[in-house]
Amino acid sequence: MSPRTGRRSGRVDTKELILAAARTSFASAGYDATSLRAIARAAGVDPALVVHYYGSKDRLFTAVMQLSVDFPTAVSSLLADGPAGLGERVVRFFLGLWEDPVARQPLLALVRSAVSNEQAAATLRSFVGDALLGPVAAALEAPDRRLRVTLVGSQLVGLAMLRYVVCVEPLVSTDVETVVAWLSPTLQRYLTAAEAWS
Amino acid sequence: MSPRTGRRSGRVDTKELILAAARTSFASAGYDATSLRAIARAAGVDPALVVHYYGSKDRLFTAVMQLSVDFPTAVSSLLADGPAGLGERVVRFFLGLWEDPVARQPLLALVRSAVSNEQAAATLRSFVGDALLGPVAAALEAPDRRLRVTLVGSQLVGLAMLRYVVCVEPLVSTDVETVVAWLSPTLQRYLTAAEAWS
Repeated sequence: MSPRTGRRSGRVDTKELILAAARTSFASAGYDATSLRAIARAAGVDPALVVHYYGSKDRLFTAVMQLSVDFPTAVSSLLADGPAGLGERVVRFFLGLWEDPVARQPLLALVRSAVSNEQAAATLRSFVGDALLGPVAAALEAPDRRLRVTLVGSQLVGLAMLRYVVCVEPLVSTDVETVVAWLSPTLQRYLTAAEAWS
Repeated sequence: MSPRTGRRSGRVDTKELILAAARTSFASAGYDATSLRAIARAAGVDPALVVHYYGSKDRLFTAVMQLSVDFPTAVSSLLADGPAGLGERVVRFFLGLWEDPVARQPLLALVRSAVSNEQAAATLRSFVGDALLGPVAAALEAPDRRLRVTLVGSQLVGLAMLRYVVCVEPLVSTDVETVVAWLSPTLQRYLTAAEAWS
């Protein structure tokens, strides 16, 4: 094995160590209380390496989320079949994310921090906007497409709040298919209806 | 003035002092960090009087909210005109609450606390359930009426999160009438549609 190859595999291990430490820290300590320095300590690496590989806390958070989902691919596949059924595909994707324990913990941590901390709120806005709603908006043709995707976001965030954060029954124990059946027409209307009142 | 009359008007003043102190404390310190003892201190009264008049923090919170809205009357009037247009009336009522600065501050404080604190979450559940969604559910006839009002809650909570808490544009600067036009059919469907997919 050449030294060059050795360095490369060492780099991969270090990035993975940092990601695993970040995932644990975001999920347990929350977004606010997690620092790049604390992640470096937990990963047993120099803080400069965390900055080198990930740059900032919100980019590290995005990388943690991408452990469970490849967002660009997921969004492309949501959009690939055109506007028909888009609302249902978006609901299923969102529920799939929250029902997955690997993805749920850092999401919960971020939502909890976002309501009281402006840096976390900015990360939530940019993560949701850049990774999910932005590409969906870009695929719409309506002039008010940014408002439309924000309305989609409002229904999805409210669902997450009541089902996963504040835990309001009977929404917590309602099966996924029933939630899909209720929310899909709402999102479809926000995404593609010709007018608000239609 | 007889001593009896004097005591009665003193009692009214004390209750008002306590309420005003509670409103300020909930809005500035948040729900978690507000204690009956701190409210008593701010109002200049004995903590035992706060317990005597209001019993608990969540009952005091409900009383603070009722400074701006008489909920039983408001809900009766939402329901008085029957199911037609109910979704729109609920959206207008909810937006009216949040657009009112007197009501908005304690609501913001409660939502911020509810995501990280189980006692605050329980207060939010009981306040929203008892004061608003419970009476609306009682007026519906559908067998899944509790799920339906929770779905209404999910859309409204998500709207509050994006418009007033996390502040996501363009939803923050969208005028009230446009929000009403988009959300009313959603809530109407949750409240009165025969089936989820209709």
